[in-house]
Amino acid sequence: MVFRYPNGHPISYDGMKKQKMQVKEKKNNFANRGMRFEEAINESNTYYLSRGTAVIHKKPTPIQIVHVDYPQRSAAVIKEAYFREASTTDYNGVYQGKYIDFEAKETKNKTSFPFKNFHAHQIVHMKKCLEQEGICFVLLWFSTLQRCFFLDSTYLIHHWDQQHTGKKSLPLSLIEEIGIEIKPKIAPRIPYLDAVNQYLHEKETKNNGKSTQ
Amino acid sequence: MVFRYPNGHPISYDGMKKQKMQVKEKKNNFANRGMRFEEAINESNTYYLSRGTAVIHKKPTPIQIVHVDYPQRSAAVIKEAYFREASTTDYNGVYQGKYIDFEAKETKNKTSFPFKNFHAHQIVHMKKCLEQEGICFVLLWFSTLQRCFFLDSTYLIHHWDQQHTGKKSLPLSLIEEIGIEIKPKIAPRIPYLDAVNQYLHEKETKNNGKSTQ
Repeated sequence: MVFRYPNGHPISYDGMKKQKMQVKEKKNNFANRGMRFEEAINESNTYYLSRGTAVIHKKPTPIQIVHVDYPQRSAAVIKEAYFREASTTDYNGVYQGKYIDFEAKETKNKTSFPFKNFHAHQIVHMKKCLEQEGICFVLLWFSTLQRCFFLDSTYLIHHWDQQHTGKKSLPLSLIEEIGIEIKPKIAPRIPYLDAVNQYLHEKETKNNGKSTQ
Repeated sequence: MVFRYPNGHPISYDGMKKQKMQVKEKKNNFANRGMRFEEAINESNTYYLSRGTAVIHKKPTPIQIVHVDYPQRSAAVIKEAYFREASTTDYNGVYQGKYIDFEAKETKNKTSFPFKNFHAHQIVHMKKCLEQEGICFVLLWFSTLQRCFFLDSTYLIHHWDQQHTGKKSLPLSLIEEIGIEIKPKIAPRIPYLDAVNQYLHEKETKNNGKSTQ
């Protein structure tokens, strides 16, 4: 016996099951929700800001303005401008007195994170921030796998500097080992400050261990 | 007897004296040297960055891009865009593990610094940064007087919040009392980190005083 909708179409239980699964999948998929990784981070920053947890912003895209029109009685219109390469990372701010600095990158790759996602000047900036004792990291998003990792920039720089040996990417297995996985949530979407807390806690434990030896 | 230039114009000693004075004035005058206060700060940041003293950058101007052309074989051209109001201060970064956040403003006024130089959203941003224990201040430039001051944002916010009483500006005499004067130098042009050091030292002394009472 075939059950039918009021419009006469047969009800397929297989189809219903599939639909349900798709809904479940969508919950953790930024792409399906028309939301890119960057937007998820911006939303998380807004969440943290509104709760008074941290003040972290994405920097505006640097632009070289060449020509501006000033029409009477209306706003200035930029008529010719070019995108400039950023000399720093995209995000920075303050969290409990600490300087936070990070870059967010995504890959469709399933087994490793290619170094080409990072620019040399961003690596230089991270080195300089680490020298100033800033908290410096990258958020890595494997879009196909729907997995997000926090990675201390110290590790990224260490492996980046070994590119002359032929290394072109960070294997996922290594990221799983040295990074901290961040499970996307409803709010904040990317709870990356949880990973920062874990990182700070581990660092403190390590330092205490050193000082008592 | 009148001395004359080869072109027949009389040489005026008064004029020469004036010219000499102007040269002297130019030395400490950003405007005369075609250099605005902002540029002097940017140069100071470059100086601090190159010495490994601090990593502090001016944020790019936020722009709303409406239309971009992608001509073949050349860089993308922004054809229509508008200036957006910034939601934060202009400068931030890290100095010895500490989060630094500031805004730089100038006035031609000789006796006080008008509040209208600051936007409400910048004051809100400063409040939020202070809550996160960031080091938050303003650099005030009296262009006519050629004097520069560091002012802890706590003071600025306190007086800003009293605008309902009719206050429209911060008197110079008050700034002299509660701020720290910064004497422009050759390099860095605006040695504002000296003022930050003094501020931190005074804060520490104050806190130690409290804890021993």
